[in-house]
Amino acid sequence: MIKAYAAFEAKGELKPFEYDPGELQANEVEIDVHYCGICHSDLSVIDSEWGQMQYPIVPGHEVVGKIASVGSNVSNFKVGQSVGLGWHAGYCNSCACCDSGDNNLCAGAQPTIMGHHGGFADKVRAAANSVVAIPDGIDLALAGPLFCAGVTVFTPLLEFNIKAGDKVAVIGIGGLGHLALQFLNAWGCEVTAFTSSESKKQEALTLGAHHTLDSRDADEISGAAASFDLIISTVNVKLDWGLYLNTLKPKGRLHFVGAVLEPLDINVFSLISAQRSVSGSAVGSPATIEKMLAFVVEHDIKAVVEPFSFEDVNAAVARVRSGETHYRVVLAK
Amino acid sequence: MIKAYAAFEAKGELKPFEYDPGELQANEVEIDVHYCGICHSDLSVIDSEWGQMQYPIVPGHEVVGKIASVGSNVSNFKVGQSVGLGWHAGYCNSCACCDSGDNNLCAGAQPTIMGHHGGFADKVRAAANSVVAIPDGIDLALAGPLFCAGVTVFTPLLEFNIKAGDKVAVIGIGGLGHLALQFLNAWGCEVTAFTSSESKKQEALTLGAHHTLDSRDADEISGAAASFDLIISTVNVKLDWGLYLNTLKPKGRLHFVGAVLEPLDINVFSLISAQRSVSGSAVGSPATIEKMLAFVVEHDIKAVVEPFSFEDVNAAVARVRSGETHYRVVLAK
Repeated sequence: MIKAYAAFEAKGELKPFEYDPGELQANEVEIDVHYCGICHSDLSVIDSEWGQMQYPIVPGHEVVGKIASVGSNVSNFKVGQSVGLGWHAGYCNSCACCDSGDNNLCAGAQPTIMGHHGGFADKVRAAANSVVAIPDGIDLALAGPLFCAGVTVFTPLLEFNIKAGDKVAVIGIGGLGHLALQFLNAWGCEVTAFTSSESKKQEALTLGAHHTLDSRDADEISGAAASFDLIISTVNVKLDWGLYLNTLKPKGRLHFVGAVLEPLDINVFSLISAQRSVSGSAVGSPATIEKMLAFVVEHDIKAVVEPFSFEDVNAAVARVRSGETHYRVVLAK
Repeated sequence: MIKAYAAFEAKGELKPFEYDPGELQANEVEIDVHYCGICHSDLSVIDSEWGQMQYPIVPGHEVVGKIASVGSNVSNFKVGQSVGLGWHAGYCNSCACCDSGDNNLCAGAQPTIMGHHGGFADKVRAAANSVVAIPDGIDLALAGPLFCAGVTVFTPLLEFNIKAGDKVAVIGIGGLGHLALQFLNAWGCEVTAFTSSESKKQEALTLGAHHTLDSRDADEISGAAASFDLIISTVNVKLDWGLYLNTLKPKGRLHFVGAVLEPLDINVFSLISAQRSVSGSAVGSPATIEKMLAFVVEHDIKAVVEPFSFEDVNAAVARVRSGETHYRVVLAK
């Protein structure tokens, strides 16, 4: 039996929950969970914010631990090895996306916490090809947030061919944004942090930003016209996107990794006049996670975390709900 | 004196208008106009649709003719040479866009028909580096539409690295769309035409489309889910963009070259869930026009035009306003 914490209704408290995962499948691994980050998406799923969910739900998709056992067809992991698991716990392995290494875009991918039990537990299972080995040199206590928040902001750098010297801005300095600033600085970019929090401005500079701008100050944003090659928006609130589009250089891109519920009311002229793009993405492929982890080791990038014990999971969730976290809550065994 | 046709007020009839262009500047050429296509943007400018214009306005930015004289610093054109002139009649020549060959994205570029007199005239002047030589093998009577409509739909193929075998759809089969279908077919793509006109479906197949879909039929569009790598929208009316986004494959792009006045109400989830992009562009650089012209010769691509004499310019404009053109009105000397 796996001992987990589950929500039994929308917005419900998490309560102890045991389940029998059955026989380990040939392509699966079982992970002893040591740490698990808490992402805003865990709350969205607990709360049925994206549509009605099936309960009980075991959240947790920033899982770090050790391989406890491997299925009969798994040859690339050994018991005791340090690994991580993110948003996806399996892929269809037969579509064009899977064939080309973009498994995270597979329409049949299995989310770790929907229709599958996640990492708020002593153990979790997943398809071996959704699990990534954690190289030496990464502090496991800080590694969880890399597997969702981290890869979500790392993916655009690879996908959109961002180069050293490019000017990149990040909107929202939280769980995702604080990693984005570190990645971008190490990538050699000129980095600007948009934040509405006065206290976070100084912290943003410490994390790697070269400049800060007030994300709620229209004059300050207008003053940055035609400045950026890329803006990564991590926030889940509606901003004046037209203002932000104008801060993009010709051929610039406004990229959403934060799920804003309100439609983007984009003026076509501001796209056409300067060949701009608006786009979005979520998480990344296992291959991208591997590249990110190597980059993290090379550049000594560290998530800033607030640790909670698994027993205090409800306090930890409440802390995430407060929006006050600096910068990621992580449950620790 | 240059003998032109000009609008003297918003939506006004075009009337004969003579102006003295002064001394030919060192970097300029003067072109004897033989043909001039009429683009929807000419109407938008005549009508002050994009903001109040200064009158008189001499429209015409799909100009084809012969070099009549060259400025003292112009060495790459000879009198009598066949050339074309499109949306821009000059660039700042000193910004990052000009430096990198993206002159069409120069914020200081000089539009041919705003603050400058265009090609509804016996002669027109332009900076030599905004003018492109027309190679042998192109019928000058059909070349005008290439310089705005053509390059506008050719640019995305280069800019977004479209490859043979990619699945590309075109929304709207008019002046731009009928060239897009020919380009895409010759490019080796699998081509779909979205049109609401029953009569244009058969024509679209003749022009190079492999498939057609009704641009107003929600069921037909929904049936094409996850089909396209790129959609080029040439229309200037609001459609249900969410429906079209769903027809894009993961990593697909909905690209606007038609200036829709209503904001695009884009759902962020449909971008994030499949790493999709929405973008826009206008015309293209002189270097892109050169590449397009070579491609046109290689693949014997031909604009389909309705010729009018310059004296019948008001009838020609009325024909464009009717929306019934198949597919481009061209004034001929």
